[in-house]
Amino acid sequence: MTTAPDYSQGVAYVRGQYVPIADAAIPLTDWGFLRSDATYDVVTVWEGAFFRLDAHLERFARSCASFRLDPGRSPEQITEVLEQCVRLSGLRNSYVEMIATRGQPPWGSRDPRQAVNQFYAFAVPFVWIADEAQRTRGLNLMVSDVQRIPASSVDPRAKNYHWNDLTMGLLGALDAGGDTVVLTDGAGHVVEGPGFNVFCLNAQGVLVTPDQGVLEGITRRTVLEMAQALGVPLEQRTLPVQELQEAREAFVSSSGGGLLPVTRINGKAVGDGCVGPVTRQLTATYWAWHHDPRYRRAVQYAL
Amino acid sequence: MTTAPDYSQGVAYVRGQYVPIADAAIPLTDWGFLRSDATYDVVTVWEGAFFRLDAHLERFARSCASFRLDPGRSPEQITEVLEQCVRLSGLRNSYVEMIATRGQPPWGSRDPRQAVNQFYAFAVPFVWIADEAQRTRGLNLMVSDVQRIPASSVDPRAKNYHWNDLTMGLLGALDAGGDTVVLTDGAGHVVEGPGFNVFCLNAQGVLVTPDQGVLEGITRRTVLEMAQALGVPLEQRTLPVQELQEAREAFVSSSGGGLLPVTRINGKAVGDGCVGPVTRQLTATYWAWHHDPRYRRAVQYAL
Ligand SMILES: Cc1ncc(COP(=O)(O)O)c(C=O)c1O
Ligand SMILES: Cc1ncc(COP(=O)(O)O)c(C=O)c1O
Repeated sequence: MTTAPDYSQGVAYVRGQYVPIADAAIPLTDWGFLRSDATYDVVTVWEGAFFRLDAHLERFARSCASFRLDPGRSPEQITEVLEQCVRLSGLRNSYVEMIATRGQPPWGSRDPRQAVNQFYAFAVPFVWIADEAQRTRGLNLMVSDVQRIPASSVDPRAKNYHWNDLTMGLLGALDAGGDTVVLTDGAGHVVEGPGFNVFCLNAQGVLVTPDQGVLEGITRRTVLEMAQALGVPLEQRTLPVQELQEAREAFVSSSGGGLLPVTRINGKAVGDGCVGPVTRQLTATYWAWHHDPRYRRAVQYAL
Repeated sequence: MTTAPDYSQGVAYVRGQYVPIADAAIPLTDWGFLRSDATYDVVTVWEGAFFRLDAHLERFARSCASFRLDPGRSPEQITEVLEQCVRLSGLRNSYVEMIATRGQPPWGSRDPRQAVNQFYAFAVPFVWIADEAQRTRGLNLMVSDVQRIPASSVDPRAKNYHWNDLTMGLLGALDAGGDTVVLTDGAGHVVEGPGFNVFCLNAQGVLVTPDQGVLEGITRRTVLEMAQALGVPLEQRTLPVQELQEAREAFVSSSGGGLLPVTRINGKAVGDGCVGPVTRQLTATYWAWHHDPRYRRAVQYAL
């Protein structure tokens, strides 16, 4: 007798099969692992509906093109796979990832063009990049000495797993008592952190976010659109560390929880050290927009 | 009835088990994949013996320390695993890889310190980074515009899978009719290529190899030692692209085949366009040293 598979912790799509996330594996020899030769995207399901799925599918297609990877599926087919992962899991709030890897060339070849690319996907419970206590009191964000991998080496607009710089920076920040980390471009400007973009409301009341050397986050885009809708003045440009440190408010943006407030930088209070009014308003708008039919695509849980 | 597993294509060590390489997989959720949060080393077995195994084990330990990864095994225990992979495969010439990955932190945590690190290993047939025709006529090495990920972002001395720059550079080189690629530091100096260090015998007859922004290859070390033994003048320093282009001889060094001659750079002949005498002498010495008991450790195929 076979017992029904346990999909409750998440479901993955691997080699054409849907499996419990705990059983999902990729070949050790896939260059996606052995050379981090892969791209991916993460979309969320919130209260039973995908949020801005189209934007994530478009970015995934652009990332694949940038790295010359072929997921072998149309956006519609990818949508079907993602929805089936969510459906089987039954999750109403979910973190949904799609992945294209190089695969591997025939034995003995070192030519990436000869590899058969692979596609993977999974849906797991919603991931918050800050826990509830951190979201209430705000994050203590540490500015790291580690330099984010520059655009001259790896295209930051193509979502990739080249995270050693972020991980080493994060370890340093955690050791120093911070909650998370932001890296710089090595020339005194902050860029991004492990899974998020950075915003500040500067001393002049302008919302500033870096525009170079960063992933164009879909949450970042939503923030830009919300700022415009709410009439918050906005600038996309390099962001000096000092300007961030002297800001009135700061937050990070990520599919992993939307807008997460930052109330300390390197341990020192941002503004009065409390979550600021603009951050609150944008955060409320972010969750409100999840009900907007333009951005929402309901998951069909029962077929 | 179960048929005996087919180990002839290689053997991997995965979660404490030895399996045919075709069955070896890592969890999709291991940060070793999802964040390229891993380190590795590659040692070879040639004619039934490991070559410089101690040097590879030492470098692996240093790489692990640099990325704060714990393979959970002593060098002696790792040796046992590697030898068992080779033994089961029966391979007399083998490419043997050891890997430490972050694993994953408890669900919901983003703290790398809470992860249980994982150890993997495999032995597959010997890999040549240049095929026989290329080894005979010499490689056409293309100098890429892509900048190697700088040391300020990722420690190049700790062996890592951050290869997107190398892979994108390689794709460009192959498209342009080259055999392989070398990246620069973005300031006019060559650094390294996909799986190898670079050497040239410059116009003055000095053997030059870059010392910054590169992995300290064990084959590179062997070349340095051979040059000293043979009285070839030697410099470890930055290597301008132009000096490489004007060199008398050039070659790359890798565990994937030792010294591989370069006879063209961006399509233009190096020296007279033939494999040069110093390259030949060093290559012969490299293979001769495989019989030196200082470097050789015979695999016990039968237990
Ligand atoms: C490096 C990096 N920057 C920014 C982001 C934020 O992007 P998004 O808002 O699309 O989740 C992510 C998301 O994972 C990321 O990995
Ligand atoms: C980036 C890089 N540089 C250099 C080398 C050469 O190192 P070794 O001679 O130890 O094989 C490698 C080996 O894979 C490598 O990956």
